[in-house]
Amino acid sequence: MPTYDAPLREYRFLLNEFLEISRFQNLPGFAEATPDVVDAVLEEGAKLASEVLAPLNRVGDVEGCTRHADGSVTTPKGFKEAYKLFVEGGWPAIGADPQFGGQGFPEVVTRLFSEMMSSANMAFGMYPGLSHGAYSALHAHGTPEQKKKYLPKLVTGEWTGTMNLTEPQCGTDLGLMRTKAEPQSDGSYKISGTKIFISAGEHDMAENIIHLVLAKIPGGPEGIKGVSLFLVPKFLVNEDGSLGARNGVSCGSLEHKMGIHGNATCVLNYDGATGYLIGEPHKGMRAMFTMMNEARLGVGLQGLSQSEVAYQNARTYAKDRLQGRSLTGPKEPDKPADPIIVHPDIRRVLMNIKAFNEGARAFMLWTAMQGDLAHKSGDAKERELGDDLMGLLTPVIKGYFTDMGYRNATDAQQVLGGHGYIAEWGMEQFVRDSRIAMLYEGANGIQALDLVGRKLATNGGRAVFAWFRLIDTFLEETEATPELAPYCDALRLARMQLEEATTWFMANALANPDHAGAGSMDYLYLFGLTGLAFMWAQMARVANARLANDKAGDRFYETKMHTARYFIERVLPEASAHLAKIKSGADPVMALPADAF
Amino acid sequence: MPTYDAPLREYRFLLNEFLEISRFQNLPGFAEATPDVVDAVLEEGAKLASEVLAPLNRVGDVEGCTRHADGSVTTPKGFKEAYKLFVEGGWPAIGADPQFGGQGFPEVVTRLFSEMMSSANMAFGMYPGLSHGAYSALHAHGTPEQKKKYLPKLVTGEWTGTMNLTEPQCGTDLGLMRTKAEPQSDGSYKISGTKIFISAGEHDMAENIIHLVLAKIPGGPEGIKGVSLFLVPKFLVNEDGSLGARNGVSCGSLEHKMGIHGNATCVLNYDGATGYLIGEPHKGMRAMFTMMNEARLGVGLQGLSQSEVAYQNARTYAKDRLQGRSLTGPKEPDKPADPIIVHPDIRRVLMNIKAFNEGARAFMLWTAMQGDLAHKSGDAKERELGDDLMGLLTPVIKGYFTDMGYRNATDAQQVLGGHGYIAEWGMEQFVRDSRIAMLYEGANGIQALDLVGRKLATNGGRAVFAWFRLIDTFLEETEATPELAPYCDALRLARMQLEEATTWFMANALANPDHAGAGSMDYLYLFGLTGLAFMWAQMARVANARLANDKAGDRFYETKMHTARYFIERVLPEASAHLAKIKSGADPVMALPADAF
Repeated sequence: MPTYDAPLREYRFLLNEFLEISRFQNLPGFAEATPDVVDAVLEEGAKLASEVLAPLNRVGDVEGCTRHADGSVTTPKGFKEAYKLFVEGGWPAIGADPQFGGQGFPEVVTRLFSEMMSSANMAFGMYPGLSHGAYSALHAHGTPEQKKKYLPKLVTGEWTGTMNLTEPQCGTDLGLMRTKAEPQSDGSYKISGTKIFISAGEHDMAENIIHLVLAKIPGGPEGIKGVSLFLVPKFLVNEDGSLGARNGVSCGSLEHKMGIHGNATCVLNYDGATGYLIGEPHKGMRAMFTMMNEARLGVGLQGLSQSEVAYQNARTYAKDRLQGRSLTGPKEPDKPADPIIVHPDIRRVLMNIKAFNEGARAFMLWTAMQGDLAHKSGDAKERELGDDLMGLLTPVIKGYFTDMGYRNATDAQQVLGGHGYIAEWGMEQFVRDSRIAMLYEGANGIQALDLVGRKLATNGGRAVFAWFRLIDTFLEETEATPELAPYCDALRLARMQLEEATTWFMANALANPDHAGAGSMDYLYLFGLTGLAFMWAQMARVANARLANDKAGDRFYETKMHTARYFIERVLPEASAHLAKIKSGADPVMALPADAF
Repeated sequence: MPTYDAPLREYRFLLNEFLEISRFQNLPGFAEATPDVVDAVLEEGAKLASEVLAPLNRVGDVEGCTRHADGSVTTPKGFKEAYKLFVEGGWPAIGADPQFGGQGFPEVVTRLFSEMMSSANMAFGMYPGLSHGAYSALHAHGTPEQKKKYLPKLVTGEWTGTMNLTEPQCGTDLGLMRTKAEPQSDGSYKISGTKIFISAGEHDMAENIIHLVLAKIPGGPEGIKGVSLFLVPKFLVNEDGSLGARNGVSCGSLEHKMGIHGNATCVLNYDGATGYLIGEPHKGMRAMFTMMNEARLGVGLQGLSQSEVAYQNARTYAKDRLQGRSLTGPKEPDKPADPIIVHPDIRRVLMNIKAFNEGARAFMLWTAMQGDLAHKSGDAKERELGDDLMGLLTPVIKGYFTDMGYRNATDAQQVLGGHGYIAEWGMEQFVRDSRIAMLYEGANGIQALDLVGRKLATNGGRAVFAWFRLIDTFLEETEATPELAPYCDALRLARMQLEEATTWFMANALANPDHAGAGSMDYLYLFGLTGLAFMWAQMARVANARLANDKAGDRFYETKMHTARYFIERVLPEASAHLAKIKSGADPVMALPADAF
C-alpha cells in the first residue's frame, strides 16, 4: 500500500529562501502569510493529505463511482466523509477572496496545498479543483448579484462546481458546439444539449453543484464567436439562498476510464435546464479562458504531484528490496543481497525524477508568484510582466509537467520490477491516474500550439523577450561566482538554444505555418528544460550562498547542489536533440500525403 | 472497438526484398518456405489474428481470468474456443522440429506470425508463447526419452508450457531462490516452494500443462550455481502417453495486474510435486538461458506488436475525426472541420510510430535471420557470427522495443484526445498491456546491464566489432550512390557515436564499474537507434533501387524513402543526447549517498 509524505522541507526552502516571499508584504494576503502561519497551514494540510486522503486513493481506484437508476452518483466509500473533513477544515477557502468568506492566501501557498492533495489522492483533489475553477470564472465575470448568490457557498465548499465544454463531436474545436441556450422572458436561458467528460459532474458530497456551461444562443455568430457561458445550478437557488427545484440537468452515464476512478466523469444531459448568462452574450470564451489558464496550471501541478508520490514509493522500495550486489562490491555483506538502490541504473531513475520534481516545483511556484504579482501588484508594469509570463509559461507547465509526470510515474513503477505491475503495490495507479493530465484541459499538442502559435507572437513577442531578459540578468549577477559557473554555463547554452529555436520559428513559420506546428512539441520540451535549468541555477545560487555562510556541511544544501549538477549533466543534453528536430522543419513530418498512411 | 489489420505488404517486402530469404535455400526449412507458401501461411495467420483473436482482446481485458475454489482457472469467454481453432489450424507447430511433428518453418516466418497474434491479442498470444519457450528448452536440453514423451503434445498444442523462475524474495537475483527439489529413489524429485508471476500458469484451454521450474537440490552449491531445472507436469504422464494422477502443483491465486488480464498470471504452489531433472544438476541456468533469449526476443516483439496495433487505430481516428482547420488553409472545406491528420503535430506522432514500427520490424527480422543462421547454417563461422549477433542484439531488442512500444502506445492514445482515456476505444488497453513487456523477462535495466556488462565484453568484444564491421561494409558498398548519401551519413554518425560510447566504457568501466551501470540504459537506446538507422539505410537502398528500375513512382517505395528520411531527421538526433549522458559518467548519478534520498 503506497504512502505519501508531504515534502515540507522543500516547501519552506522554496517559499522562504528561493522566492523569499517576505519581500512581497506589500501585496494583499502576503503580510498575513508569515513563515509561522504558512508552516502551520501546510503542516495541517500535510496531515489531511497523508492521513485522510492518501489511504482512500486505492479505495477510490478499486471501487470507483456508481451511477444509480435515478441518475444520482455515489462516490467511493470514505470520500464523502473525507470531503466533510475538508470542508470543516476550511480548506476550500484558503485561496478565496475574503469578501466572500475566503482566507486570501497567496497563490504560492495554495498551490502547495493543491500539490499535497493531488499527490495523496488525485481523483479526490479534482472535486475541489473544479470548484475553484468555477469560483474563479464567476469571481472574474459574474455580476455582483451572481457573486453574492453563488460564491460564498463555493468558498465554504458546501457547493461544488464544474466546467462544461466538451461534446461528442466537439473537443478542441469548440466552434463545433451544438448545445443551445434559448433566451427566456425573465432574462434566464433554457439550456439543451449533451456535454461529455464532465469531471465531478454529479456526486453525493455536496448539496448543490454549480455547472458552468458553454452553449450557443440561437441567431448568434457562427463558430467559436457565438459561444456564451452560463451558470446552471443542479438545484435552483431561491432569493434567500435556500435550495429550490431540481434543474433539468442530469447525469446520463459515467465514463469507464483508464484511471482517476474516484472522480465521477459524467455525461451530462441538459434538457431545457435553467441557466444564467455569465458575462456578455457570445463572449463565453473570454470568461472560459480565465478558468482554463488557472486549470491548466492546476493540471500541470497534477503531473508533478503524481511524479512526487510515485518517486517517494519507488525510493522506499529501492531501499527495502534486496536483490543482487553492487558493481563495486557488497554494500551490506551481512544481508543476503544489497538493497537495489546501490545499482546505478536504479539511482539514475531516482535522480531523474528527483531533479524533475524539485526543479518543476520551483518553476511552478515561481510562475504562481507571477500570478500573484499579475493579480495583486500595485505597479502596472509588474502586473503586465506577471501576466505576460503566466500566459507564456502556462502551456509549458501544463504540457511539460504532465508528460514528465506520466514518464516519471512509469519510471518509478519500473523500479519495482514485476511488482510494479501488480495493483496492490499502487504504482500502476499513479501511472493510470497521471495519464489523464496529458489529455484534459487541452491535450498537450494543443498546449504546444498555443505556445508557438499564440503566446510567442502576442504583443510582438513581449513575453518571451522578457523571459530571456530575466535569464540574462540572472547570468550577469551570478556568473562571476566560480562555484556557480557550471550551472550558469548550462543555463546560457539552453537559453541560446531556446532563442535559436524561437528565431527559427519567426523566420520560417510565416512562409509555412506547418514549420511551427511540426516543431511545436519539441519547442515546448526545450522551453520546459530551459525553465528547469533557470530554476536549478537559481536554487544552486541560494544553496551555494548558504553553504558558504551559515550552513556549511548542511546536507540539504549539498543535496541541492548535487541534484542541480545531475540536472545539467544528465537531463539538459536533451535540449540539443529538440533543437535539431525543430530545425529540420515541416518537410520530413508532412512529406507523406494523408492517404499514404 | 479497435481493429487489427496485419501489415502483409510490409512482411513481403522484408522477406523477399530486404532479407531476400530465397538466398538461404540451403538452410533446412528455407527451401520449402517459397514466397507462395509463406504468403499463404501469413494470410491464413492474418485472418486468425484479425477475425478470431482481435475481437477477443477487449473481452479478455474486461472479463479477465477467474480462479475457482478448487484452484482451477477459467479463461475469458471465447479464449478456449479460439485456442481450439489455433490448435486445429496447426499453428503451434509452425516453427517446431519436424521430428516431433513440427512444420519447421524458419524463425523469420514464425516471428511474423507471432507479431500478428500479439498485435491482435497479446494476452492470448502469451499462452502459445510460453509453450514455445518450454518446447525450446526441452528440445535443447531434454533427454531423448523426455523429448519423445513431452514434445509432440507441446507441438500440437494439446499441452501448453510455462517458465517458473520468480519467487517473492527472488526476482532478478535468482541466487536467492528457496524452492527445493528433493531427490527420490526412482530418479525423480519432490519439488516444494512458491513461484509467483507465472504466466499461463493454470487455465482451461489445454488438457495438460508442462511447468519448467527452477529449484535447488539440497546440498548443492550456494546461490545461482546451485540452481537446477525441472519438468513438472500438471498431470503426470503415463508410459503410454495417457494422463495419470494430478501432480502436487496448484494455483494459489491470480495476480491483479495493470493489464494482460486475459492471461492467467498465477502464484503456483509446489507441495512435493513430482519433477524430472532437465540437463545436469546445478546447471539449470544454462538451460534456462535457452528459453530466456528466445523469450526476450519474443517480448521485444510484443513491444512492436502493441506499437503496430495502436498505430493502426490512431491512424484510423486521425483520418475520421473532424476538428479544427489545417494551419495552411482548409483541406476539406465542405466539411465542418478538417480531419485531424492535417495537423503537423498529429502527423509527427504518426510518423514517429510508423518509422519505429517499420524499422524495428526489419531489425527484428534481421536478427531472427541471424538466429536461423546460428542454428541451421552449415558454416561454422556463419553460425558463430549469427550466435554472436543474436546474443548482442537480444537485450537491445528486448529493452528498446518494449520501451518504445509503450511510448508509442501512449502517443497513439494521445491522438484520440480525451477519448483515448475511455476504455471502450481500446487505446488505453494497448498502453496497459504493453507496459508489462518492459518488466518481465528481465526488467529493461537488467537488459541494459546484460548488454554493457556482459555482451560487450564476451570474447573480447567480438560481437560488437562484428556489428561495426557489418555497418562499415554496408557503407562502403552504398555511399557512392548519391540518393543514399543522407542515409549513409546519418548511419555513419550514429555508428561513430556508438563506437565512441563503447570505447568510453572500455576505457572507464574497469576503474569504476558504476560508469558502465550509470550509462547502460542510454547505451541501450543509442544501440537501438543505431540498429534502426542501419535497417532504414538498408531499406532505403532496396527502395531506391526499385524506384530507379522497375518501380518508378510506386508509392510503397516512395513512402519507404520518406519514412527513412523522417527517421534520420526527426528521431536519430536523440543519439547525441544519449552519448553526452553516457560520457558524463557515474559521478552525477552516484553523488548522493543512498540515505540522502
